[in-house]
Amino acid sequence: MTRIQRALLLCATSLPVLCLAAEPDPAPPTMARVLEQSTASDWRSLDPDSTLYMELPGGRVVIELAPGFAPQHARNIKILVRAGYFDGLAIIRSQDNYVAQWGAPEEMDARQVHPLGEARPRLAAEFTTPISAATPFTALPDFDGYAPQVGFSNGLPAARDPESQRTWLCHCYGAVGVGRDNESDSGNGASLYAVTGHAPRHLDRNVTLVGRVMQGMELLSTLPRGAGAMGFYGTAAERVPIKSVRLAADVPMAERSNLEILRTDTQTFTQLVEARRNRREQWFKVPAGYVGLCNVPIVVRQKKHEAPE
Amino acid sequence: MTRIQRALLLCATSLPVLCLAAEPDPAPPTMARVLEQSTASDWRSLDPDSTLYMELPGGRVVIELAPGFAPQHARNIKILVRAGYFDGLAIIRSQDNYVAQWGAPEEMDARQVHPLGEARPRLAAEFTTPISAATPFTALPDFDGYAPQVGFSNGLPAARDPESQRTWLCHCYGAVGVGRDNESDSGNGASLYAVTGHAPRHLDRNVTLVGRVMQGMELLSTLPRGAGAMGFYGTAAERVPIKSVRLAADVPMAERSNLEILRTDTQTFTQLVEARRNRREQWFKVPAGYVGLCNVPIVVRQKKHEAPE
Repeated sequence: MTRIQRALLLCATSLPVLCLAAEPDPAPPTMARVLEQSTASDWRSLDPDSTLYMELPGGRVVIELAPGFAPQHARNIKILVRAGYFDGLAIIRSQDNYVAQWGAPEEMDARQVHPLGEARPRLAAEFTTPISAATPFTALPDFDGYAPQVGFSNGLPAARDPESQRTWLCHCYGAVGVGRDNESDSGNGASLYAVTGHAPRHLDRNVTLVGRVMQGMELLSTLPRGAGAMGFYGTAAERVPIKSVRLAADVPMAERSNLEILRTDTQTFTQLVEARRNRREQWFKVPAGYVGLCNVPIVVRQKKHEAPE
Repeated sequence: MTRIQRALLLCATSLPVLCLAAEPDPAPPTMARVLEQSTASDWRSLDPDSTLYMELPGGRVVIELAPGFAPQHARNIKILVRAGYFDGLAIIRSQDNYVAQWGAPEEMDARQVHPLGEARPRLAAEFTTPISAATPFTALPDFDGYAPQVGFSNGLPAARDPESQRTWLCHCYGAVGVGRDNESDSGNGASLYAVTGHAPRHLDRNVTLVGRVMQGMELLSTLPRGAGAMGFYGTAAERVPIKSVRLAADVPMAERSNLEILRTDTQTFTQLVEARRNRREQWFKVPAGYVGLCNVPIVVRQKKHEAPE
């Protein structure tokens, strides 16, 4: 029985005035309908000064950095990118249901072959950062086991601890982090990874996350898995070469990926979250009444062509 | 400072008797240590009467069915497998961060080309099943947003509702489910899917799950994503052919994959869960104090050769 049928049944046994009062609100919209009804102000363009294009043989991976959460690491990575550090390096690791990682292969003395230049060789960890205007936050209504509060910041899954007043990005699918050794300050952004499997949220607050893959995840997620320990490729032939990594701002307009992301601080996004908490498409029989942080879709699309002035 | 150093420091400022009493328990073992210390009784062999070998060009995918949770669907699938139904069919869908699906391509009239034979064309949904001896359960101590209780049953992630006394398998990475149309009873096991992305737990109780991929996930997770809607392949050339699907019990011993799975109803497994709730490897700086159902590793390994009698 549909909601309307149920309402009609109620009407049949109620006084007319009660019937009108009992008429249910229309069902909340599905995700498809939320997106259809969105307006231009529900979207924001990726920031060309924080967006990287990693060119692989299979195509372009678009990454947006989040300098609000990791200012020093974002800065270092931009220095490396502008110096061409990553050009000619490779995807060195693909571990099933976990991560793909790129940078200099171990046997290559990266600092000799590809000097870090103006970039700093070690950086203090930015596992968490103080809550500030640089880290806006829209809370998700649902419980999370890994953090006191979770939600979204400029489109990225994030967490907060009101007690310590710290915030951090979360290891959902597509999150990009800074590889490091055992020491917290041993990373510098010259080796990066993207989450390609079920969210390894136990890494939260243990690694500096610097951003998110906004397009091209399938170029990383479908890579053959490495046969070595932790999915590292054992030979040069297995590795996937990186043609180049460029900052979008340094790429001619005609060659840019003109993407926009659904803002996460709007009524539209609140509706989208509800559309995922309780799926109302005909196919679904039991609504979940809950959505996990990493199950909320981050919607990225090609910008529509604007009319010339 | 290590725990032992801290204990020694305490000793230096304490009376000897207090020092002995204050000596901390050794830290709980890491996952690697838990597995090293496991004994033969911590493992069980996959059941050859419920294990399928799907042979793809890249190798073998090993699936164990869970007849305790979906007896009618498991039975139907075994009938189809024994009739050679899947031989010559294909992987027809690969959607990034979601599922890979196999069966008869849409344009093929499956029932004509590959008749269902003795298998039933429609089956009542087995989205959930009554709690019984066929569905043993070891509860996970942590909260789950999608179900009142979660844990493991014979090695598979599962959930329970003590109120309704129902139980069901959960959509974690590697879960295998029965494709269906809008009607709950429109599935029959002739089209199956495996979860290849972040756990789509909102599908729980909306689909009949029938088992789990126990080996060969990377053969499904690395498949090129389909360009069609929902990741379906648009052309025959894109699809990955299935050479055959066989029941392990019907395969000569020498050709079987002799796998065993870590039992989930043992003290060893309890230790493993704790090792994942709070990672104690040197690399980790902040323990999570929590583990999500789909973040608990299901450990499958090659059986050691047994000495001949």
